[in-house]
Amino acid sequence: MTREVQLIGISNAIVDILAHVDDPFLNSIGAPRGSMTLIDEEKARDIYQRMGPATEMSGGSVANTIAGFANLGGDAAYIGRVRDDQFGDIFVHDMRSLGVDVRLDPAQDGAPTARSHVLISSDGQRTMQTYLGACTELGVADVTTETVGQARVILLEGYVWDIPEGPALAAQAIAIGRATGAKVALSLSDSFCVERHEEAFMAAVIDGVDIVFADEDEVMALYKVDSLDAVLAAIQGTTTLFVITCAAQGSVIVHGGEAVVQDAIPISEIIDTTGAGDAYTAAFLYGWTAGEPLAECARLGTWCATAVIQKLGARLEKGILDDYASAKF
Amino acid sequence: MTREVQLIGISNAIVDILAHVDDPFLNSIGAPRGSMTLIDEEKARDIYQRMGPATEMSGGSVANTIAGFANLGGDAAYIGRVRDDQFGDIFVHDMRSLGVDVRLDPAQDGAPTARSHVLISSDGQRTMQTYLGACTELGVADVTTETVGQARVILLEGYVWDIPEGPALAAQAIAIGRATGAKVALSLSDSFCVERHEEAFMAAVIDGVDIVFADEDEVMALYKVDSLDAVLAAIQGTTTLFVITCAAQGSVIVHGGEAVVQDAIPISEIIDTTGAGDAYTAAFLYGWTAGEPLAECARLGTWCATAVIQKLGARLEKGILDDYASAKF
Repeated sequence: MTREVQLIGISNAIVDILAHVDDPFLNSIGAPRGSMTLIDEEKARDIYQRMGPATEMSGGSVANTIAGFANLGGDAAYIGRVRDDQFGDIFVHDMRSLGVDVRLDPAQDGAPTARSHVLISSDGQRTMQTYLGACTELGVADVTTETVGQARVILLEGYVWDIPEGPALAAQAIAIGRATGAKVALSLSDSFCVERHEEAFMAAVIDGVDIVFADEDEVMALYKVDSLDAVLAAIQGTTTLFVITCAAQGSVIVHGGEAVVQDAIPISEIIDTTGAGDAYTAAFLYGWTAGEPLAECARLGTWCATAVIQKLGARLEKGILDDYASAKF
Repeated sequence: MTREVQLIGISNAIVDILAHVDDPFLNSIGAPRGSMTLIDEEKARDIYQRMGPATEMSGGSVANTIAGFANLGGDAAYIGRVRDDQFGDIFVHDMRSLGVDVRLDPAQDGAPTARSHVLISSDGQRTMQTYLGACTELGVADVTTETVGQARVILLEGYVWDIPEGPALAAQAIAIGRATGAKVALSLSDSFCVERHEEAFMAAVIDGVDIVFADEDEVMALYKVDSLDAVLAAIQGTTTLFVITCAAQGSVIVHGGEAVVQDAIPISEIIDTTGAGDAYTAAFLYGWTAGEPLAECARLGTWCATAVIQKLGARLEKGILDDYASAKF
């Protein structure tokens, strides 16, 4: 019997390989600064061979959110595909050690566990070159009433649409959500991803997705407009809950007629913005699944995103809410 | 033809698995706080399974020194054994990407690449549980005139004596050093290691080792005395160069009649002391192989060790000497 959880994530299971690089290196591999590019195994091998010494840790956008949700004290599960190699072991170990119910065991065959080369420039900007490997073999057969089970929220990421059976397994997840009464949330991943799958995402938002997590760029790409105001006008009539983060400008939550604006917390120094959105999503959903009002969910999200950008690494750590109750913001 | 280098390291090639732990966790695995314990594969699997999410990066004491020496701009080579698994790939990649001439390719068979579980307490103290794996298979056959080649300094670590052929391959390295005119340096690793091999180390220091790198505890363990003054008295008559680090008390260099005292640089906050000694050794040898006087070598070592303890992670990064020339200390 599958354990009932508050949140289940379905996404690309990736090990991050972090290294510091300079601009000539990015030029030499043809990677625009700040971009996220999908690469094949040969290119992955080439980049790895030429890049400097690296640090490896579990990553992946929705996987980060699931890890953060578990660290906040939430009950979470995860569906993603890794191979039974050392990187796959790392990934599954890290999720399980947080108490996440990992629903799929590492695959005995197929492509190696996915890795994302996270290339950090001296100003902190990150360029990602991702080899999806085993992720591409996640299929419809992995997303069943048995593996998904009963959850308050099923969280998908836009990157899932980049894999062959992604659109089909996302549709299946939405159908399971409908059948079990789970809300379906979609994190839009990045604006290039939105451009790749804009029609499919729009169809999903119109019919099936209950909550959208996005930053300004992503939601503007989805609605093909060039301002947040135009987005807000476009979504006014929908029943979908939109959670839109705007970096230093804070965030705005729109649900039918209701709108909540949450200011960012001013900080003196940003160490590393990676994972800020994932942390926001984790904390927002932590509040939301506990029945908190939208304003409190936004406040929780802001607090946790702020904590993540003041340290190196994408993941939300335990104890993040220790000073939350007494904080003035 | 083997490339001529300034420094070659022979040591245990280890991937560090870093995780934050609390005291009950350390108690549950029977690990005294701050200790370094050798464990078998089963225990390694057990600890990994029970520990929290982790970060993986190349490590190993002398390997850290070799990496730091290369990052300072020195020409370095390395002999250590890894398996051809993902951790072995990481290790070899990281060293080669720094320009280090890695003399042994990953082994096609045998034990998996070594890993050290670096368990970090909330106050920053580190407890290490190390599975030596492939390291234990480093043998006399790997240390030849061909693999060692011509170097100014051959650097060994005390931990080498923990592996079956360690004493024999260390003797061979000393013989090759004598034959090629290379100086042989020994880093004493830790005081427990010194206690395990005190007689062998003393014999090596009396005959064969030209330079000893140690902290206070290690050198007191070697001479079985309980004060630094007693150590200084004991080593007065030897021709061996002693480089002794004393944490916040600075360092003292003794060579025959000459003694140099170098104060530590006062800092407001220590982030992570791991690798401080390795960085000191790297920078000291960088100066020494360039013909700098002992006082300047000590000053370089102090500068680099200070940089390493003000960041997370053991390794000395590129550009560390950028502000060195103008620094007042």
